Amino acid sequence: MTGLLRGEPQVISAGVGLLADAVELQAARVTRVDWSPPMAGTADDLATVLRDPRRAAANELAVRRMFGARAQLVDVLPARDALGLRPGEFLHAGPPITWQRASGPLRGALLGAAVFEGIAADPETAAGLAERGEFGLSPCHDHDAVGPMAGLVSPSMWVFELADPATGRRCYCTLNEGLGKVLRYGAYSPEVIERLRWMASVLGPLLQAAVRRHGPVDVTAILAQMVQMGDEAHNRNRTGTLMLLRDLLPSLIESGKPSADVAAAVAFIGGNDHFFLNLAMPACKIALDAARDIPGSTMVVAMARNGTDFGMQVSGTGSRWFTAPANTPEGLFLGGYGPEDANPDIGDSAITETAGLGGFAMAAAPAIARLVGGTVASALATTRRMYEITLAEHPLLQVPALDFRGLPAGIDVALVLRTGILPQINTGMAGRVAGTGQVGAGLVTPPAEIFPAALLALAEAAGSLVRSRPDARRS
Amino acid sequence: MTGLLRGEPQVISAGVGLLADAVELQAARVTRVDWSPPMAGTADDLATVLRDPRRAAANELAVRRMFGARAQLVDVLPARDALGLRPGEFLHAGPPITWQRASGPLRGALLGAAVFEGIAADPETAAGLAERGEFGLSPCHDHDAVGPMAGLVSPSMWVFELADPATGRRCYCTLNEGLGKVLRYGAYSPEVIERLRWMASVLGPLLQAAVRRHGPVDVTAILAQMVQMGDEAHNRNRTGTLMLLRDLLPSLIESGKPSADVAAAVAFIGGNDHFFLNLAMPACKIALDAARDIPGSTMVVAMARNGTDFGMQVSGTGSRWFTAPANTPEGLFLGGYGPEDANPDIGDSAITETAGLGGFAMAAAPAIARLVGGTVASALATTRRMYEITLAEHPLLQVPALDFRGLPAGIDVALVLRTGILPQINTGMAGRVAGTGQVGAGLVTPPAEIFPAALLALAEAAGSLVRSRPDARRS
Repeated sequence: MTGLLRGEPQVISAGVGLLADAVELQAARVTRVDWSPPMAGTADDLATVLRDPRRAAANELAVRRMFGARAQLVDVLPARDALGLRPGEFLHAGPPITWQRASGPLRGALLGAAVFEGIAADPETAAGLAERGEFGLSPCHDHDAVGPMAGLVSPSMWVFELADPATGRRCYCTLNEGLGKVLRYGAYSPEVIERLRWMASVLGPLLQAAVRRHGPVDVTAILAQMVQMGDEAHNRNRTGTLMLLRDLLPSLIESGKPSADVAAAVAFIGGNDHFFLNLAMPACKIALDAARDIPGSTMVVAMARNGTDFGMQVSGTGSRWFTAPANTPEGLFLGGYGPEDANPDIGDSAITETAGLGGFAMAAAPAIARLVGGTVASALATTRRMYEITLAEHPLLQVPALDFRGLPAGIDVALVLRTGILPQINTGMAGRVAGTGQVGAGLVTPPAEIFPAALLALAEAAGSLVRSRPDARRS
Repeated sequence: MTGLLRGEPQVISAGVGLLADAVELQAARVTRVDWSPPMAGTADDLATVLRDPRRAAANELAVRRMFGARAQLVDVLPARDALGLRPGEFLHAGPPITWQRASGPLRGALLGAAVFEGIAADPETAAGLAERGEFGLSPCHDHDAVGPMAGLVSPSMWVFELADPATGRRCYCTLNEGLGKVLRYGAYSPEVIERLRWMASVLGPLLQAAVRRHGPVDVTAILAQMVQMGDEAHNRNRTGTLMLLRDLLPSLIESGKPSADVAAAVAFIGGNDHFFLNLAMPACKIALDAARDIPGSTMVVAMARNGTDFGMQVSGTGSRWFTAPANTPEGLFLGGYGPEDANPDIGDSAITETAGLGGFAMAAAPAIARLVGGTVASALATTRRMYEITLAEHPLLQVPALDFRGLPAGIDVALVLRTGILPQINTGMAGRVAGTGQVGAGLVTPPAEIFPAALLALAEAAGSLVRSRPDARRS
């Protein structure tokens, strides 16, 4: 004991600051550790999962596979050919859902898609068909696809085909329609349907001709450049869109298509800063799909919302969705819209956050603060906070403002529960009422309860392995 | 005196830190002021200029005019039509110079231009003509023009025409050739001449058709977006180039020109991240020219280098050049080149720094650190330091990483001398030997002695006004 009194005291404090404050008032130096107990009720499962002998190697493999994937745009073609969709079959964002539980924007998008496909003459007729269960509805994620917001894919829509040249893994996504009154935000007025028709008859075939003439476009390389030029690839895709346009231009021009069509397509893409989102998303999914189904891995491989439920999939628990009611984003609103107009969180676009982009990359895109709310300082702080819940730093996606540190990637369910920090998502906000369109953009997190549910499943899977080493805990 | 002893001491320290250190060791708080005496021998002139009763209002007017200017790209045409250049007449970067005193890269560019114009069959013949004084040589700046590096303009080269819609003020600049072996870096091999011929016969006419079809392109608005996307508009013009391409594309495609030519032009522009530099520079000159010739103003309106001399013009001293031997940049070298291969500082491109871009905007483009040397932290520090010597913060050009603070713009000769801080320029480096081309990129400052010279001229101009108020100094 006398040793303690002889020298300068060495004080380390964790948890609430009362004691540290008192010691500091007596002029001693205190090292404060930012610690809080794990999420309530999760301590036992967390102990089991953290003792899983497979975990470290499994997560290392998951990260290696995620970072090893490359995504190239290899073709553009109708969803019926790419995904085998038949008339009356529709894909949607997020985990599985029925018409009865679907939110306004998902319903609106479905009605619009049915009219676009010529299955129903008008939205009212389409609603009747939907009500009677005559449409096939399944998640994009179950069909190697992703879709922003409502994420509606119907057979006649054209989709980008992305592939990883090393593994042949493929992922699909529709072409981005722009902002405002668009199908993915639940709008279905005649102008929306008209635009979809032009995209299917002019834009899609043109892009197909250009991509086939050009050869594969390296989407991963464009993503790496974007985060050095102020994009975070979820709500800011300006430079990505510009680079795509630049890369495809010579082939577009020499496609032999009417120059008025080429000019219109180029003006459409150039006028839509979000066009590249629909390439960023499938590129992220290709990387995360490579990390699926690794026993013992606690890494999140998908976060997706259907406007009613938020769903998450984890590498070590296969294709099981952990779901809970989606939160409603908080942020900035367009025109006269306000919080009461916003639908809960919707879209597969949280695949970008799952891969280290979007909300995780806010530090790379400080201007995003003006779109979704917050300050430049909060954008930097958000990215820094995400390092607490991720397994690795992305070797290709580096942030100049953080001295070229790699983005935080690979969300670890165990780290989320250990720290209580939830993944930060930034997102567009759809109007609650079908037919409205976009009402704003903001910030949101997954519902916290999906993480204990996933942890329980991971603990159950690890259970026998951990119990077979009864001394592990004490050692 | 007892009052001093009763309370906590209030200590403010300026200059060397010895006293402050000693006081701090006695546990008193010291506010350190970063102060150093004015540049040696300038105290009297500085006092005169700072007492000039016109100065505050004159600088305010200069800043207002600079910020009030807008630059639009309104046409593309041959220099002979735009600038009235006749065969054998050439413009160059920087202050006036003769062939005899010209540096290697300026000589190389002149020889290449003479061959390109068909005045000489080969560079050797051209050198003979130059030696005998048969070429007309004058600065771009004297002809409403600017040119990067050697800044060579000859009658058959095509130039951008920029105009300020409010004042009609115009400025011209050639089309950017790309990097490496190019005329502006002093290279004149057959491939260089061939490229110039294609630019004059295909690219120029195509851009003319596109700009005339499109109507004015708002270059100032593009600059404002660039600094939010990682460009500083001197050595990084990636997003500027992409946005220009996007804006002109539909008109390029519908120009009626052969689609192979359009495709080649688009590939050329898209493959040259520096293409927009030749629009950024004249846009800066249009803004700074608006601030010229204001009696009493100590604001710098041009910094330019011809490869031998660095020249500066100041609003209150008209068209007089203050010159001194140019410094040699320090930075990173291409391939096997090293410091001994670098020519002294060359080009009109320091017009970007004069307007608050380039080296002054390093904080907006942290990735530039990898091109010119330095770190992200030093890039931020450089922009912060430039606020010490500038009159204002740019209302349109704002830096996300500095919480959207406006760029430091309007260099004040008096502040430079008062603080001893020299303007920071980032720049490409040309090979010292004619014909070499680019050897690297780096950082450089003006030679310090031009500032006391400008100050003396300002003091002389202010002299009678200040002397007429003999009590001003004591009041």
